[in-house]
Amino acid sequence: MPDKEIKAGELLSQIDIPSDLRKFSEEDLNRICNELRQFIIDIVSVKGGHFGASLGVVELTIALHYVFNTPYDQLVWDVGHQAYGHKIITGRKNVFNTNRIYKGISGFPKRTESDYDSFGVGHSSTSISAALGMAAASTIKKDTLRQHIAVIGDGAMTAGLAFEGLNNAGVSNTNLIVVLNDNCMSIDPNVGALKEYLTDITTSHTYNKMKDEVWNLLGKFSRFGKSAREVASKMEHLIKSTLIKQSNLFESLHFRYFGPIDGHDVNHLVKVLRDLKDIPGPKLLHCVTVKGKGYGPAEKGNQTVWHAPGLFNKETGEIIKVVPKAPQPPKYQDVFGHTIVELAEKNPKIVGITPAMPSGSSLNIMMKAMPERAFDVGIAEQHAVTFSAGMATQGLIPFCNIYSSFMQRAYDQVVHDVAIQNLHVIFCLDRGGVAGADGPTHHGNYDIAFMRCIPNVVVSSPMNESELRNLMFTAQLDENPGPFVIRYPRGEGVMPEWKTPLKKITIGTGRKIKSGDDLAILSFGHIGNYAVTACEMLDQQGISAALYDLRFAKPLDELLLHEVFGKFDKVITLEDGCVMGGIGSAVLEFMAKNGYHSKVKLLGLPDKVIEHGSQIELHTECGIHPAGIAEAAIQLIGLKKKKAFAL
Amino acid sequence: MPDKEIKAGELLSQIDIPSDLRKFSEEDLNRICNELRQFIIDIVSVKGGHFGASLGVVELTIALHYVFNTPYDQLVWDVGHQAYGHKIITGRKNVFNTNRIYKGISGFPKRTESDYDSFGVGHSSTSISAALGMAAASTIKKDTLRQHIAVIGDGAMTAGLAFEGLNNAGVSNTNLIVVLNDNCMSIDPNVGALKEYLTDITTSHTYNKMKDEVWNLLGKFSRFGKSAREVASKMEHLIKSTLIKQSNLFESLHFRYFGPIDGHDVNHLVKVLRDLKDIPGPKLLHCVTVKGKGYGPAEKGNQTVWHAPGLFNKETGEIIKVVPKAPQPPKYQDVFGHTIVELAEKNPKIVGITPAMPSGSSLNIMMKAMPERAFDVGIAEQHAVTFSAGMATQGLIPFCNIYSSFMQRAYDQVVHDVAIQNLHVIFCLDRGGVAGADGPTHHGNYDIAFMRCIPNVVVSSPMNESELRNLMFTAQLDENPGPFVIRYPRGEGVMPEWKTPLKKITIGTGRKIKSGDDLAILSFGHIGNYAVTACEMLDQQGISAALYDLRFAKPLDELLLHEVFGKFDKVITLEDGCVMGGIGSAVLEFMAKNGYHSKVKLLGLPDKVIEHGSQIELHTECGIHPAGIAEAAIQLIGLKKKKAFAL
Repeated sequence: MPDKEIKAGELLSQIDIPSDLRKFSEEDLNRICNELRQFIIDIVSVKGGHFGASLGVVELTIALHYVFNTPYDQLVWDVGHQAYGHKIITGRKNVFNTNRIYKGISGFPKRTESDYDSFGVGHSSTSISAALGMAAASTIKKDTLRQHIAVIGDGAMTAGLAFEGLNNAGVSNTNLIVVLNDNCMSIDPNVGALKEYLTDITTSHTYNKMKDEVWNLLGKFSRFGKSAREVASKMEHLIKSTLIKQSNLFESLHFRYFGPIDGHDVNHLVKVLRDLKDIPGPKLLHCVTVKGKGYGPAEKGNQTVWHAPGLFNKETGEIIKVVPKAPQPPKYQDVFGHTIVELAEKNPKIVGITPAMPSGSSLNIMMKAMPERAFDVGIAEQHAVTFSAGMATQGLIPFCNIYSSFMQRAYDQVVHDVAIQNLHVIFCLDRGGVAGADGPTHHGNYDIAFMRCIPNVVVSSPMNESELRNLMFTAQLDENPGPFVIRYPRGEGVMPEWKTPLKKITIGTGRKIKSGDDLAILSFGHIGNYAVTACEMLDQQGISAALYDLRFAKPLDELLLHEVFGKFDKVITLEDGCVMGGIGSAVLEFMAKNGYHSKVKLLGLPDKVIEHGSQIELHTECGIHPAGIAEAAIQLIGLKKKKAFAL
Repeated sequence: MPDKEIKAGELLSQIDIPSDLRKFSEEDLNRICNELRQFIIDIVSVKGGHFGASLGVVELTIALHYVFNTPYDQLVWDVGHQAYGHKIITGRKNVFNTNRIYKGISGFPKRTESDYDSFGVGHSSTSISAALGMAAASTIKKDTLRQHIAVIGDGAMTAGLAFEGLNNAGVSNTNLIVVLNDNCMSIDPNVGALKEYLTDITTSHTYNKMKDEVWNLLGKFSRFGKSAREVASKMEHLIKSTLIKQSNLFESLHFRYFGPIDGHDVNHLVKVLRDLKDIPGPKLLHCVTVKGKGYGPAEKGNQTVWHAPGLFNKETGEIIKVVPKAPQPPKYQDVFGHTIVELAEKNPKIVGITPAMPSGSSLNIMMKAMPERAFDVGIAEQHAVTFSAGMATQGLIPFCNIYSSFMQRAYDQVVHDVAIQNLHVIFCLDRGGVAGADGPTHHGNYDIAFMRCIPNVVVSSPMNESELRNLMFTAQLDENPGPFVIRYPRGEGVMPEWKTPLKKITIGTGRKIKSGDDLAILSFGHIGNYAVTACEMLDQQGISAALYDLRFAKPLDELLLHEVFGKFDKVITLEDGCVMGGIGSAVLEFMAKNGYHSKVKLLGLPDKVIEHGSQIELHTECGIHPAGIAEAAIQLIGLKKKKAFAL
């Protein structure tokens, strides 16, 4: 379906920015919601992107922008993959078909994109702290009218940062509204006591209903005479002074708690939000919503699938799957998922841990196969690592799987709880390197640099599926009882026949992929496959490049490097990670220590924020695609290129 | 007072390990507590160290080891500076006088030191996650008898990691006991809603007392006849089913809550802990203690001072201050504290933020001078950074002061909330480099490496007080509106007359300290002062070394480096930080990019866990003390040393 056929409905087409929305009467809001929902369905079904979350907050989006004076009032969307509706009614309706596309608009709120995006997001649980910071700024500037609203999901609420924000906000006296969007579901089924608590206060006796009933019953005692009235009065005092005050987790933290209310009743939302505006101090509004609301297949189907379903037939709800003609290489994450089960079957000490990414990491395979040994701890990266450390002290061998960019959340725990104690925890960093359409917040660009500087830590990366399996096998051996990082990219490897026999790799050894005479390329991880192609391109130009897969950023294969620098005076290092402090720097450190003076070109991600796009688009932009590598080689050896490279 | 005069009391001297303690009758426990307290006072008064916290948990320490079967049962002390009593009764009484001394025992629990130290600590808030990991491991190993106890202070409870642990523990069914040591005081007065909540349930109507009263009152209704009894019964049902269940923050998170109890009644503690042992699932015991308990001056005096008072006269409580003969250089932290006030007086956009370290960072100077613009957010590094980012979006300029090693806790927030958005937040990293007696958990060794790989971030370090002031002045200028790191060490600078006029420094410029002919030394930060001494030593041997203060790790001063590498074929880089990925690597990257091939020696902290000791002891161990630098220079230029260097 071509884009031009996607048209906004009659009312929505009159709304470019929220001030247009505010011209409509409250009676129109329902229809506007329906049109907005339809527009999201129309676009996402043919363009892809996050889906369920945005459908779930259509009414909330409309109500917030209707009641609050955005962008003067500051609206912070936590995580931000639910902000499609927000983007559409804040000036980006006509470019929304470029969502998540290279050079198009971002899939997340982004300050440089719009004044309505008050805070850039992508990672979860930042919204309360950010909004509180804005609110504190308004207090300092004596701007008492400005409102600051954080919209945060129940899943994001479990992360420590959200709690830190709540705890600090509770003692502030700022215009802060936290909208808890309780959709009973984060990306993967949500775990933790907070979730159960929310369900508890949402179902059966709700908090407010219960309060009403208490007062009601107390009133009844009056008919039993004066003495009874006196006892009832004491009771009322007691309940008011302590029980009620403490009877809600958020009120314990000094938030005024409101709700739970139906997050799909736009008119009621408008009324409640208007009321909240006039109440001073920190407030929490608990809204119950349904992910995928208003689109049957998403509402009733598997919510994990409909989180970001890819393309689908919007009429039938059928998700469009391209069936490949030949067997395809698996995703690295699936190789991880199957291999950990295979290893755990033989080694009873192995356990698996993920912070809220069972399907994204494929640990769900182990969670199904051996549920008692696989743990989803919720959005709680810090806890995931320290929990793993605790297990390791008892002789277990945790595979703690965290996306590279999310691992930034647990950096201190890696240093303080694992590395300093030299515990046997294996970190599988999925989504290392540029992550693709999710963009800068999700790129795992810094992990090689921030991991290799930590003592005791082995840092490795596989070039293909077989290597991933062998590194996993090696990492869990008793002979390697320290922290071990295995870093791999988002997406597919290169081996359709991936299930190779498990083999031990000697730690700190690379491998020669290809001999050569004119220069050597030292690659790290999957991107070495680009170098294979680059070598072929160079061959065609009569240039003979050797290729080595370093495999370990730490410890380096010093034997291999002595061979390389003994032979080559021109060397390229290649990594899908920041050049600053990465494996190229590690090689330079080796050279300095050993007195080598070859000419070295460091290829990797440049020192800038890399935006969203497909992985190959971004690699090309950074000059680390096959042709870029080949060009760098030619430049390094000082030859003129004979003909242009095709990608 | 010589060590040999410090003797343990009669009972304590019979206790080497907890099994000795368990041989005593309960009647003796009070006396043992007194003797343990006295022993701590005796040693700390002449040896220094943390003080108030350990005195506060004497009874808890004795009760825990008396009731639980340590080390089979796993006892995790959060932070660990309260574990002196624990160390003394777990085999380290006779070496306790080496506490925090180079090559002596650590000031914190440490796994390599004792089987009783189940988990190494230093940073706060890890204990619940670690103990839960241990408990989960016991479940997997079907060891249902083992107990797992986390002892955590009220201050540490505010950090996100503690909440993540609680939230996850609440849905486990493990033998986990969290002892909340509520001493109404962390290092600095504690802020946040949780604190107020704890005070709330501790004072006046306590939680349990209130519950009793409710039941009591309900019972009274029965005398008003059957109908009244029926209403009371309904009421009871309602209260039981919802209010009580939800009426405690910890019970909301599915913990069984007990307390608050007096943490100084050792016999009561023993009784309660025995009871808790038999209750399945996660439990929280709320103990109220007093920091400095049993030592008048500490109990009644300034608790911040008595947290770690240095040496003192134990009879009079007088803290021993060495009065210097001449004016001394100030601590870097105090230069920060005074200068931020000076800057903020002129620039209304400046605000100050610290996560629970107002006195450690000296932000307390600003908190006193302009309370509305200086924020202590409690132990919540992540929040401190994202809160700062939120403020920066509103045009304020936050100086966010965090110890280097604690900044590891907020790494993702630096990347995701500040750097990607290129916000004007200034990070003052105190305690950069080796921190001294606190040891490996507190060394700030990795910050140069983990900061310089992040795009948009300026990374700087002053060599003296004047430079710190000028960097702070520069960082807050409107012309530099991005993230700006200023890193400085623990302790004193070099300028007694430190209050120099504020001058702008061009970002990315270093300065030449001294010319020379034979080699160049490129230093970063305060450690450059060692290089000055090293140059003098070299001079005496007829070696002429040039010295440059790089001042910026990022961006590098390329002009200066071109000058250096144009002139010198032998260069030393020097930093008080890990060599892997540090400023030495940055210089190597510059060389690779620009085709320089000088011989370079990287001096810095080696790739290993560096233990505790004084800063100069540790620098000497790492070969980056003045004589070490001079020796490296001589080795680099290939000369024989003419005579040995004095330090």
